[in-house]
Amino acid sequence: MPLPRLFRPRHVASAHCDLPCGVYDPAQARIEAESIKAICEKYQASDDPEFRSRSLVIKEQRSELAKHHLWVLWTDYFKAPHFERYPQLHTLFNEATKLAGASGVKGSVDPAVAEQLLTKIEEISKIFWETKQS
Amino acid sequence: MPLPRLFRPRHVASAHCDLPCGVYDPAQARIEAESIKAICEKYQASDDPEFRSRSLVIKEQRSELAKHHLWVLWTDYFKAPHFERYPQLHTLFNEATKLAGASGVKGSVDPAVAEQLLTKIEEISKIFWETKQS
Amino acid sequence: MPLPRLFRPRHVASAHCDLPCGVYDPAQARIEAESIKAICEKYQASDDPEFRSRSLVIKEQRSELAKHHLWVLWTDYFKAPHFERYPQLHTLFNEATKLAGASGVKGSVDPAVAEQLLTKIEEISKIFWETKQS
Amino acid sequence: MPLPRLFRPRHVASAHCDLPCGVYDPAQARIEAESIKAICEKYQASDDPEFRSRSLVIKEQRSELAKHHLWVLWTDYFKAPHFERYPQLHTLFNEATKLAGASGVKGSVDPAVAEQLLTKIEEISKIFWETKQS
Amino acid sequence: MPLPRLFRPRHVASAHCDLPCGVYDPAQARIEAESIKAICEKYQASDDPEFRSRSLVIKEQRSELAKHHLWVLWTDYFKAPHFERYPQLHTLFNEATKLAGASGVKGSVDPAVAEQLLTKIEEISKIFWETKQS
Amino acid sequence: MPLPRLFRPRHVASAHCDLPCGVYDPAQARIEAESIKAICEKYQASDDPEFRSRSLVIKEQRSELAKHHLWVLWTDYFKAPHFERYPQLHTLFNEATKLAGASGVKGSVDPAVAEQLLTKIEEISKIFWETKQS
Repeated sequence: MPLPRLFRPRHVASAHCDLPCGVYDPAQARIEAESIKAICEKYQASDDPEFRSRSLVIKEQRSELAKHHLWVLWTDYFKAPHFERYPQLHTLFNEATKLAGASGVKGSVDPAVAEQLLTKIEEISKIFWETKQS
Repeated sequence: MPLPRLFRPRHVASAHCDLPCGVYDPAQARIEAESIKAICEKYQASDDPEFRSRSLVIKEQRSELAKHHLWVLWTDYFKAPHFERYPQLHTLFNEATKLAGASGVKGSVDPAVAEQLLTKIEEISKIFWETKQS
Repeated sequence: MPLPRLFRPRHVASAHCDLPCGVYDPAQARIEAESIKAICEKYQASDDPEFRSRSLVIKEQRSELAKHHLWVLWTDYFKAPHFERYPQLHTLFNEATKLAGASGVKGSVDPAVAEQLLTKIEEISKIFWETKQS
Repeated sequence: MPLPRLFRPRHVASAHCDLPCGVYDPAQARIEAESIKAICEKYQASDDPEFRSRSLVIKEQRSELAKHHLWVLWTDYFKAPHFERYPQLHTLFNEATKLAGASGVKGSVDPAVAEQLLTKIEEISKIFWETKQS
Repeated sequence: MPLPRLFRPRHVASAHCDLPCGVYDPAQARIEAESIKAICEKYQASDDPEFRSRSLVIKEQRSELAKHHLWVLWTDYFKAPHFERYPQLHTLFNEATKLAGASGVKGSVDPAVAEQLLTKIEEISKIFWETKQS
Repeated sequence: MPLPRLFRPRHVASAHCDLPCGVYDPAQARIEAESIKAICEKYQASDDPEFRSRSLVIKEQRSELAKHHLWVLWTDYFKAPHFERYPQLHTLFNEATKLAGASGVKGSVDPAVAEQLLTKIEEISKIFWETKQS
């Protein structure tokens, strides 16, 4: 029984676990990046040192997850023909994963840096869904 | 800068990391359950013992992730007023997490069992999005 | 060869790994909660910023483990007949896991909050052992 | 508020998270070893290849946990004076952790091997509780 | 006090933990790949179904670690000027991480596939050490 | 095809994953300890509270990894004859793993403590390679 229209993703996703199962979805990276941005905003709004310390601990974990989901897309979903069709794809992923790391959201509590990561993920999503449709 | 309309989720999600960051999304559990279903289908279609063994290893991991994402929604997103408004919610989550475990997708390679898990997650999603809108 | 009387738990435990192996024991959650309480006490007694930061990092991990052990009992050990016999059980677990999270021991360094978590775990243990004996 | 007599461990435990919090308890290793023994028994009683594969996956994880809990006791709880008082302690732990590995319960599905691990853990428990009382 | 000559790596390594600490070393990926190759050889030499199942479980974990260590080098160690100087570097890492996954050592028990992964890691090591010296 | 001379470790390593695969290498512990030392140095050189908090989070993880790699060598690589030949080996590993924990690099940000850990790992490496050659 398929999912009713209302709750299905706009595009049918496929592969992410390296069996491979064939279910990939950039939403996994995006959800972590949204979380990171919200953490940065809460960090800026708080002056409680314990809350701020917890924020940094959790942001580190979420950043690592965002990075991991992006790496999986780059290695497991995208194939040689995609890299030919989108010559900027390697650089895009390299920059996106750097933004998910020390020189990006791991090393910053500025929501604007998290927004840059979201923008990169969105560029990747756009290409991802184009390749799913073709 | 917000995400362009095309790539935004239909509803703006909020909280999942127990800071809490306020970004929750049942899509996390659904993506794992879709992966599990695809693994079961590939398992049934294969007679390679090595592939089948790998399938079972990976299905165990994905099931645990689906279970975890459901637990997070039940404990961290839903609050007392939600449980009053939806008296079936505890049972729904208990059944859904059991379906993500040994008596469900962990202990079975039947895609129909994975479909049952997807149906439960869809019921939870429906309630989740109702509570986000109200 | 059974364990000698002296070192056996008071009640023979059964199931926790979702094979299921049939070995469950609320002691797992309790040990983490005792650790959390001790961490809070040491945090309060210290004014070394490095020790305090480490305390918060470790408390976050221990809280997640306590939460996980509770979730496992709720989903894997307790069955429909238990929930009929103990109608408060869903709420008890939901509150206990919330106490193991951001609105409880994750978000607080007050030993009294850890004590509240221990008390909830004790209520769960009491029911657990009643169901093991019947 | 202390735990009521009925639910307290027979001896008050102390230290396991390397803050250190001061809560250690050999019960953590014992619970995993009991799980491993139950898995071996269920494995022997089953002729379902999928169940047997899952058993091996889960036994591997549980064995690693038992090994880890033993390592923590050896490094974090026991101090130089204990090793002087119990000269066999190093060898006991080395043998116990080997029994939790490839030459023990990881590499075997014989419940008797799991029983040997339980016996070693019991020897360690005996010494542990002696040192807690003195 | 520096390490005596005999036990120092041939080149002083630097950065791997994304603080960043500045200690990177392709040896981490290589050790995992050597382990994978040895697992494949032991798998081929055995006809014990339990040993073979364990081999597949462990090979999956080791492959994921090899993949992770390679991703870290690609994202965290190599910078834009390196990618200009070595235009093949993106493709090299993409192929190496694919070889560490389902289309490589995860999906195969042939030691020759593990050898291909080792060869790719060696190519990466060669470039890595060149960049450390310049 | 063996690795060309230039990129091979000075001694051929063997066993670390408890299959066992037969690939062990003290370099795994050493790389983590070098990372810890670099983290301590960067911590001391910085007065940015966010950077310092991140340093403590990451140092905790790296210390746990160093400890784990040492435990694996002690339990999985070294056998009874080694412990007879090197009677100091148990104490050496117990002290090294304590140095990787709360009373060592976890509880300190002094690079000199990390250096002590490196020195212990070097002593272990020396014995390790002696046993590989004989």
